[in-house]
Amino acid sequence: MAVKGVGELDRQYNGADLRVGIVHARWNAQIIEALVNGSIKKLQSMGVQDKNIVIESVPGSFEVPWGSKRLIDRQKARGEPLDVIISVGTLIKGSTMHFEYIADATTKALMNLQEKVDIPVIFGLLTCLSEEQAMARAGIDPGHTMHNHGEDWGAAAVEMAAKFGPNAF
Amino acid sequence: MAVKGVGELDRQYNGADLRVGIVHARWNAQIIEALVNGSIKKLQSMGVQDKNIVIESVPGSFEVPWGSKRLIDRQKARGEPLDVIISVGTLIKGSTMHFEYIADATTKALMNLQEKVDIPVIFGLLTCLSEEQAMARAGIDPGHTMHNHGEDWGAAAVEMAAKFGPNAF
Amino acid sequence: MAVKGVGELDRQYNGADLRVGIVHARWNAQIIEALVNGSIKKLQSMGVQDKNIVIESVPGSFEVPWGSKRLIDRQKARGEPLDVIISVGTLIKGSTMHFEYIADATTKALMNLQEKVDIPVIFGLLTCLSEEQAMARAGIDPGHTMHNHGEDWGAAAVEMAAKFGPNAF
Amino acid sequence: MAVKGVGELDRQYNGADLRVGIVHARWNAQIIEALVNGSIKKLQSMGVQDKNIVIESVPGSFEVPWGSKRLIDRQKARGEPLDVIISVGTLIKGSTMHFEYIADATTKALMNLQEKVDIPVIFGLLTCLSEEQAMARAGIDPGHTMHNHGEDWGAAAVEMAAKFGPNAF
Amino acid sequence: MAVKGVGELDRQYNGADLRVGIVHARWNAQIIEALVNGSIKKLQSMGVQDKNIVIESVPGSFEVPWGSKRLIDRQKARGEPLDVIISVGTLIKGSTMHFEYIADATTKALMNLQEKVDIPVIFGLLTCLSEEQAMARAGIDPGHTMHNHGEDWGAAAVEMAAKFGPNAF
Repeated sequence: MAVKGVGELDRQYNGADLRVGIVHARWNAQIIEALVNGSIKKLQSMGVQDKNIVIESVPGSFEVPWGSKRLIDRQKARGEPLDVIISVGTLIKGSTMHFEYIADATTKALMNLQEKVDIPVIFGLLTCLSEEQAMARAGIDPGHTMHNHGEDWGAAAVEMAAKFGPNAF
Repeated sequence: MAVKGVGELDRQYNGADLRVGIVHARWNAQIIEALVNGSIKKLQSMGVQDKNIVIESVPGSFEVPWGSKRLIDRQKARGEPLDVIISVGTLIKGSTMHFEYIADATTKALMNLQEKVDIPVIFGLLTCLSEEQAMARAGIDPGHTMHNHGEDWGAAAVEMAAKFGPNAF
Repeated sequence: MAVKGVGELDRQYNGADLRVGIVHARWNAQIIEALVNGSIKKLQSMGVQDKNIVIESVPGSFEVPWGSKRLIDRQKARGEPLDVIISVGTLIKGSTMHFEYIADATTKALMNLQEKVDIPVIFGLLTCLSEEQAMARAGIDPGHTMHNHGEDWGAAAVEMAAKFGPNAF
Repeated sequence: MAVKGVGELDRQYNGADLRVGIVHARWNAQIIEALVNGSIKKLQSMGVQDKNIVIESVPGSFEVPWGSKRLIDRQKARGEPLDVIISVGTLIKGSTMHFEYIADATTKALMNLQEKVDIPVIFGLLTCLSEEQAMARAGIDPGHTMHNHGEDWGAAAVEMAAKFGPNAF
Repeated sequence: MAVKGVGELDRQYNGADLRVGIVHARWNAQIIEALVNGSIKKLQSMGVQDKNIVIESVPGSFEVPWGSKRLIDRQKARGEPLDVIISVGTLIKGSTMHFEYIADATTKALMNLQEKVDIPVIFGLLTCLSEEQAMARAGIDPGHTMHNHGEDWGAAAVEMAAKFGPNAF
């Protein structure tokens, strides 16, 4: 019995016509890079074309929601509006309370961003208590104990855009 | 003396004319399936017609509020507007802080969704500290120690739609 | 020296012209009933007429903010707009995190409701760590150790409606 | 080296032309009275005229944000619009979770009120773990271990109104 | 392997045409001064002209979001609109719960401010559990154990303005 796990996709999705944005923080760069690459790989495997994947970075997680908002604006201004955006950051608990306040504000800002931009925002923020936890979720810990969570975000992006994106119905 | 428990319904409700949406996450699939089935069973027992129960899934709990919003949009676009939506997810505490941030943001997004869509949103999010807790609340733990909470959500959906839904007065 | 306690009312209030709504959850029904009755008794003692007290219930605390919003809508549609609403629920800590997320989201939703409906919303949500605490605050614990908090809410409703309600100035 | 402390005012302020509102809760009345008096004294010392200090009370801290909003509305309706408001309450940790939920919701409501009313809102909410802590911050503990924080709020009100109030530029 | 650290800037930025606002609290003045100076130094090193750096102070961190909003308003009214603002405060845990409620409300207000003013807001709020932590992050602890975080904020300001500011595309 597998209680955990997202289970099978409910149907096959084809990302061939989708435009996907990725905005990622640069703090904890090695982890971020693995996560973003995981997302890209999954997007490609679901048919999203390379020319339709737009990637931009911001310094830290606090900048991710506004960066996501503005990348959406920019692509709209260019006549190439996004169908979905993946917002990626990695927060690791430190000795001050910075982690807690940033994590909470960023999560809620990404949640609320959706109604403002009217496209799905995929939550790619790791909120970990140690570097080891973050590396495991990026698929780059020594023992490879977990899969690369970026792949989940890529799959969620295609599904959400196809099912509930601006051109879904 | 029974302090706990929702007590009797305050009156009989007839769901025969109601359209009910269900958006559920797919993480923790077995638990979700039991909860959704519990909701459906209760809706049917209160007169909701099968053709008026619209179900859609999203990957995880973070996607549930936006998915709920868009299912409401979609059904409106189809000329079959929902009277109420049940938003279902199951979050289980893990080793990072993912549970805490997602649970809080999702709960508030579902609460706030109501004023944007102007229909009641029934809170079907389990926020459990263990799989055992979640299974018990879905009515599928070995000892069947609790009832299926999905049934409560089905009953709440019919009541809230009949009492405070878009066509209630 | 009595540091705690709301102290004396700052002036006498007459509720004879006020319309007061009460929306209450039904979970923890015995406690809720005592609280609502406490509010009603206080409203009456301050001159509010029985015909001007409108009561409606919802299943649980999560439903209280939206139910409050819609009772206000309904009474406006009926040409009998409310001057103030008392929103009542009782949450008791259980073994999952349900209590924490519902309590926080409901408190903030009731706070924020005020600017949307432009009438005062009286906070009648008990957020207790045990049934004993809740019973004490409803004035129904065996030792009658505390007064019925519903009375405070009734008094606050008349004061806030008279001082800051839609017809106060 | 004095790391803590607000330091010197960055310049001299003259409150002679400012209208200042004070809305305070009445719970913990002795503490509140000292705090409000501290604010008034400071306002006077910075040139605010007595006729331009408008004071109103509400029952508890939850009522402070809406009361503040409505006092601003009222003074505008009277043709005597406020330049700034000081919102005062004292919350002391009790045995239930009431303190935590009220404190958080009230703090955020006061923060957010500013953009709705377009004048500065001075945060005069004490969130203390004991009566002793609250009395100390009101300058009325036996040992007079701290200064009256209401004075800080009075000074902040004049500064913020002069610098960033509705008539500041 | 350097898991932590913002890594290299993704490209070179030229701040020569940018207008940058800084709003800072005055509590914990020595720390604040170091942080603000760190930001200014970095801004200058990235080409921002001194005449285009506008600095204003407020009493405490709670005043920072509204102060930031109004400095943006003021500079717009003067025909010298800001491209980005750095919002600086230092909160240090004390014996009451003041730190927690202010930190959370201020963080979220700064996050949400961005969509209202449509320029990036750089998060310069330290939320520390001790003075030592704050001094280290301002680069002024005895051992100089950390770099001055104000420099990061200066760099983030130029990058965010150039990449996602009002004149970026």
